[in-house]
Amino acid sequence: MAKKSVLLSTRVATMDDGAEPYGMVQDAALAVDGEKVAWVGPRNALPADYSDWPTVDYGDRLITPAPIDAHTHVVFGGNRAVEFEMRLNGASYEEIARAGGGILSTVTATRSASEEALLKDALTRVDALLTEGVSCIEVKSGYGLDTDSELKMLRVARRIGEVRPVRVKTSFLGAHAVPPEFQVRADTYIRDVCIPTLRLAHEEGLVDAVDGFCEGIAFDPSQIAKVFDVAKELNLPVKLHAEQLSNLGGAALAASYGALSADHIEYLDQVGVAAMAQAGTVGVLLPGAFYTLHETQVPPVELLRQYGVPIALATDCNPGSSPLTSLLLTMNMACTLFRLTPEEALAGVTRNAAQALGLTDTGTITEGKRADLTVWDITHPAELSYRIGFNPLHTRIFGGL
Amino acid sequence: MAKKSVLLSTRVATMDDGAEPYGMVQDAALAVDGEKVAWVGPRNALPADYSDWPTVDYGDRLITPAPIDAHTHVVFGGNRAVEFEMRLNGASYEEIARAGGGILSTVTATRSASEEALLKDALTRVDALLTEGVSCIEVKSGYGLDTDSELKMLRVARRIGEVRPVRVKTSFLGAHAVPPEFQVRADTYIRDVCIPTLRLAHEEGLVDAVDGFCEGIAFDPSQIAKVFDVAKELNLPVKLHAEQLSNLGGAALAASYGALSADHIEYLDQVGVAAMAQAGTVGVLLPGAFYTLHETQVPPVELLRQYGVPIALATDCNPGSSPLTSLLLTMNMACTLFRLTPEEALAGVTRNAAQALGLTDTGTITEGKRADLTVWDITHPAELSYRIGFNPLHTRIFGGL
Ligand SMILES: [Zn+2]
Ligand SMILES: [Zn+2]
Repeated sequence: MAKKSVLLSTRVATMDDGAEPYGMVQDAALAVDGEKVAWVGPRNALPADYSDWPTVDYGDRLITPAPIDAHTHVVFGGNRAVEFEMRLNGASYEEIARAGGGILSTVTATRSASEEALLKDALTRVDALLTEGVSCIEVKSGYGLDTDSELKMLRVARRIGEVRPVRVKTSFLGAHAVPPEFQVRADTYIRDVCIPTLRLAHEEGLVDAVDGFCEGIAFDPSQIAKVFDVAKELNLPVKLHAEQLSNLGGAALAASYGALSADHIEYLDQVGVAAMAQAGTVGVLLPGAFYTLHETQVPPVELLRQYGVPIALATDCNPGSSPLTSLLLTMNMACTLFRLTPEEALAGVTRNAAQALGLTDTGTITEGKRADLTVWDITHPAELSYRIGFNPLHTRIFGGL
Repeated sequence: MAKKSVLLSTRVATMDDGAEPYGMVQDAALAVDGEKVAWVGPRNALPADYSDWPTVDYGDRLITPAPIDAHTHVVFGGNRAVEFEMRLNGASYEEIARAGGGILSTVTATRSASEEALLKDALTRVDALLTEGVSCIEVKSGYGLDTDSELKMLRVARRIGEVRPVRVKTSFLGAHAVPPEFQVRADTYIRDVCIPTLRLAHEEGLVDAVDGFCEGIAFDPSQIAKVFDVAKELNLPVKLHAEQLSNLGGAALAASYGALSADHIEYLDQVGVAAMAQAGTVGVLLPGAFYTLHETQVPPVELLRQYGVPIALATDCNPGSSPLTSLLLTMNMACTLFRLTPEEALAGVTRNAAQALGLTDTGTITEGKRADLTVWDITHPAELSYRIGFNPLHTRIFGGL
């Protein structure tokens, strides 16, 4: 039997587009029927149908949609703390590479780790995200770079959603880096490993979207296009790491495939923004990587606003460029480093993050959508972005529970 | 009767100066007698005296000294989230000031708040620090700026240490800002309000140290010197907010009074560094404020190293320029923004933070010192600085409990 209840709160930020900033409802009532929102509005307008449902009064607290982390690499082996330390002690990139550092160290550790070990490690990061109420996490492959290891990563990603109360959307990221055994043979890797592995992963039901890294240090647009062609054939949506360190036109390429999102996009130009707007592609900003890499080129936020490109935010949680496991801190970084407004930041981890994952049943507090809610011990939603390293979570509600 | 126990762990980072990085002891035993450390070393060298004490085996976890936050303003009224939002929505400083924003809004809110309300609010921030194992917090006055309100703030600071298992060191910061009723009469404020209030606060036992803000927007060195002269007369140690936005020679002034610390110090020059070295003054870096204010001038870390000035780190938790309540994130910021090494970052929140507060009984894991310990769910101490927005605290031990 579905559980019915009416939640009361002084403020509900529905994040539905509307007249009020944050889609705010004051002195609100929120009827939850099973896993879904049945009604939301001012409590003095609550229909009589709900009047005998049990109520939970959250008093002066703020209710928002539960945050969604739309871009993570939480599944990986090892960690890079020692490399981080070597670098700060003055080691050069060459010395670090010789000591087995860099992304290859993560590939090596991921390949040799068991599924159990990968899951155990990933859960430490997932659990950190859940302490902030996160309801949905995107998880990429891309540190295996051979068939078995890529499949292993995706199976671990699926298992996260089985052992924790969180939804997982997987992205196949075989085109993340050229593995050592294919150096200077990136085309061969794409043809002989990446694409066949994508097909196998899809057959096994492990792929919700197809991703790539389009950059000088990774794959060029023609190589990404080969992977996206297969995604199209398999009817899988695409997304892309694009314009992070330079402008290769990756976002426009992704948009031409109707991509869900283009991510990073520090070097995105007006042509790329226009293409994204046209295609309905979300721009996913990753301030954790910007911060960690000491980047100085900020994403074209004003252009994205002008063209109405939805802006999402994500942790990019990964062992090299963003060992970040807090979406709240990501919101503060987006405001501080990229000058987003607190309302844009909250939309970026709720409504627009849902859109970046192709989810239409969550991300706002709306009749008929899932009751993925967070109750916070604060009164104004700007506090979520304003504070740094503070978690005011009071209650996490995932699918009504 | 004192509680006796022997803690076992694969790694204890004692942070005692010594041959090993982090003062690391492998396969360690740590005998705790009541609130103090009785012995620490390799477990195969544990003296027979301790062999029948009960043991607690922390396995592969890391034990470090408990962190200390050596510079905070956690007691204040209101918050500035709405001002943060206004600014990001394009409001000018003038518009914000007209809307009652800026430090004056905090002064107004602090003056009108009851002691109970201030305590309740401060505890939300203190509790966030305690979730990372913090054992000692410095707390400043400076948002009252009249006698009653400054005394009220210091009483609240003292009460924090009564209602939570944490030590509080108070700093009188009457010379924080010129209050509105004394605009362009800063000298009069120092003479008629700040100094008499310091004397009263000292009589009431509320002052552990005397602080000031030496900057164009606050007080000049001659005004600070007047306050420090009284501190000297009262036999109270001094410290100073110095060289944050410009170089007024504040650190050298503070050093001439044998200051415990000079804090911020982005614009500190070689003369100031030399003066600090001579006086044994700790340099307290506050990367949270640097980050929030988009500063670009980094503190002279290399000079501090050359001159052997101990470097501490603190949150500077305050509602305007650093609404930060995580010392772990502060460590990451110090490494990422100021290029400290992870070992320097850990020393900065333990050994050197203790020194910045004049504490000789904590900050390292050493025979005879307090057993203020943190047990972390990680294996390498660099992970504390490497991760962003992650709290691996397993157990907090405060004075042996
Ligand atoms: Zn990524
Ligand atoms: Zn301060």
